[in-house]
Amino acid sequence: MDRLPTNKVPSGSPTPDEKGFNVPLIRDNEIIEQPAVQTTLTQRYTEEAVKIISGKKDKPFFIYLAHTFPHVPMFASPDFKGKSRGGIYGDAVEEIDWSVGRIMDALKEQGIAENTLVIFTSDNGPWLTQGDQGGSAGLLRDGKGSTWEGGMRVPGIMWMPGKISPRITFEAANAMDIFPTVLALAGSADGMPDFDGTDLSGLLFRDEKLPADRPFFYYRGRDLFACRIGQWKLHFKTQTGYGPGGSKSHTPPALYNLATDPSEERDVSAAHSDVIAKISESVDTHRKSIVEVPSQMK
Amino acid sequence: MDRLPTNKVPSGSPTPDEKGFNVPLIRDNEIIEQPAVQTTLTQRYTEEAVKIISGKKDKPFFIYLAHTFPHVPMFASPDFKGKSRGGIYGDAVEEIDWSVGRIMDALKEQGIAENTLVIFTSDNGPWLTQGDQGGSAGLLRDGKGSTWEGGMRVPGIMWMPGKISPRITFEAANAMDIFPTVLALAGSADGMPDFDGTDLSGLLFRDEKLPADRPFFYYRGRDLFACRIGQWKLHFKTQTGYGPGGSKSHTPPALYNLATDPSEERDVSAAHSDVIAKISESVDTHRKSIVEVPSQMK
Repeated sequence: MDRLPTNKVPSGSPTPDEKGFNVPLIRDNEIIEQPAVQTTLTQRYTEEAVKIISGKKDKPFFIYLAHTFPHVPMFASPDFKGKSRGGIYGDAVEEIDWSVGRIMDALKEQGIAENTLVIFTSDNGPWLTQGDQGGSAGLLRDGKGSTWEGGMRVPGIMWMPGKISPRITFEAANAMDIFPTVLALAGSADGMPDFDGTDLSGLLFRDEKLPADRPFFYYRGRDLFACRIGQWKLHFKTQTGYGPGGSKSHTPPALYNLATDPSEERDVSAAHSDVIAKISESVDTHRKSIVEVPSQMK
Repeated sequence: MDRLPTNKVPSGSPTPDEKGFNVPLIRDNEIIEQPAVQTTLTQRYTEEAVKIISGKKDKPFFIYLAHTFPHVPMFASPDFKGKSRGGIYGDAVEEIDWSVGRIMDALKEQGIAENTLVIFTSDNGPWLTQGDQGGSAGLLRDGKGSTWEGGMRVPGIMWMPGKISPRITFEAANAMDIFPTVLALAGSADGMPDFDGTDLSGLLFRDEKLPADRPFFYYRGRDLFACRIGQWKLHFKTQTGYGPGGSKSHTPPALYNLATDPSEERDVSAAHSDVIAKISESVDTHRKSIVEVPSQMK
């Protein structure tokens, strides 16, 4: 396949012509449309998911619905384009919101909502160099590409009516936890090899706490930049997502209290050497546990 | 009265000893306590308000409850101190939240909630140089002292069950609108002199739109720094709240689209000369309408 054009959109540009991006739409291993008509992708993915749900009500199924938007370049269908207050980015997000509602309605219509775990999450923060189409990290620092919270923190919503009581939790989790959680739900966790991630089913269904001393490691490429335990996040290196300049090393490492300072503005390392020691020890243990393998991307 | 000590709290400091601030508590014109025991101020203000409500159920009344917190230095009662995830700032905010609930409960208990307009708002954004006790503007730019949105935008919540339908509005209003709104509700608007501000009762009770071309003028001291009409905000001058450096003049003025860029990160003045002309004309009209009077603060 020819190398696809990059999807770089100049900041502040209007919605690009979808014909300017020669991306293929692929079903299984077959290209079924090229260039893909991107304005209707959200609707078409949604209807595919609804079709699967409607045909599967009597047996277990798994759907991984990875919406194309709100990644740049941004598109919305005529039903949504120009309807939000937030420009094309807002339009695309509102269409995703419609899509989620449509899928939840389908689960209810089939009578299987109480027996289906719905997980809504995302892969990274906003791409800040993309202007109006890049999104916003709100009060979080920096964005995609960086190990500041603006690059790493994502929505995490789980829904299973009657099984998960509606509430907000401050327990931290990440996408690696989905696999062990789903395995536990399917009764298949026994006999599996060790993997990273924590089974969240106790948190979800019985409101149990997760282990308080669980470390989260923030990598940029192959480089461990930071580690979080509880409300404390320790940065060994920092680097802005896509801006100029390389990484900066911190000695001593920079410490932020995410509970009182979610924007990572106030380094409090001088006052908390005990926290630094604890997190550093956790990082050492982690490093020793890693067996490097040849890259599979070459 | 002696000059009071300044309330400057070093960034990251713990709750100060309330005895270190020799502030008086005044009822009418009499000092009733000095130094004021600040830890219980929120509770005592609240109980005063509840007492007024309980005694006034059969006649009109007006309460202006200006809580001391979350202004620095921050205090919370033993019921709330150390209970929130957000340190002493979070504790103080949760105690304010309790206070609001207590007052709303009192209105319900007296059977006058449907006949009482409750307005919850604030006077400015966070004092960013005060560290953990200064607050956060979330995704808004800068803080108190500046004319960026982080300095100027505040919560605006109005409650009158059965009269105001629960919803979020994107219509812009400001504190100067409270006076004409309350006058209109009291049937006293006739015969009043002209004043700044807009009667919000149509918006509140009948979901009517406010005038779309209404300008909002952003002053820093006596200097008009910016003007907003609808989603567009035009900055003639900018200056950070309390940081170093003076003001910066913008020629042409800097234009931000608050609907798509609430963080005021992307100056789009080059693409919208029509908007700049419209807002500039509104500023000219405003300037011509002002009759300067001697300062009453000297």
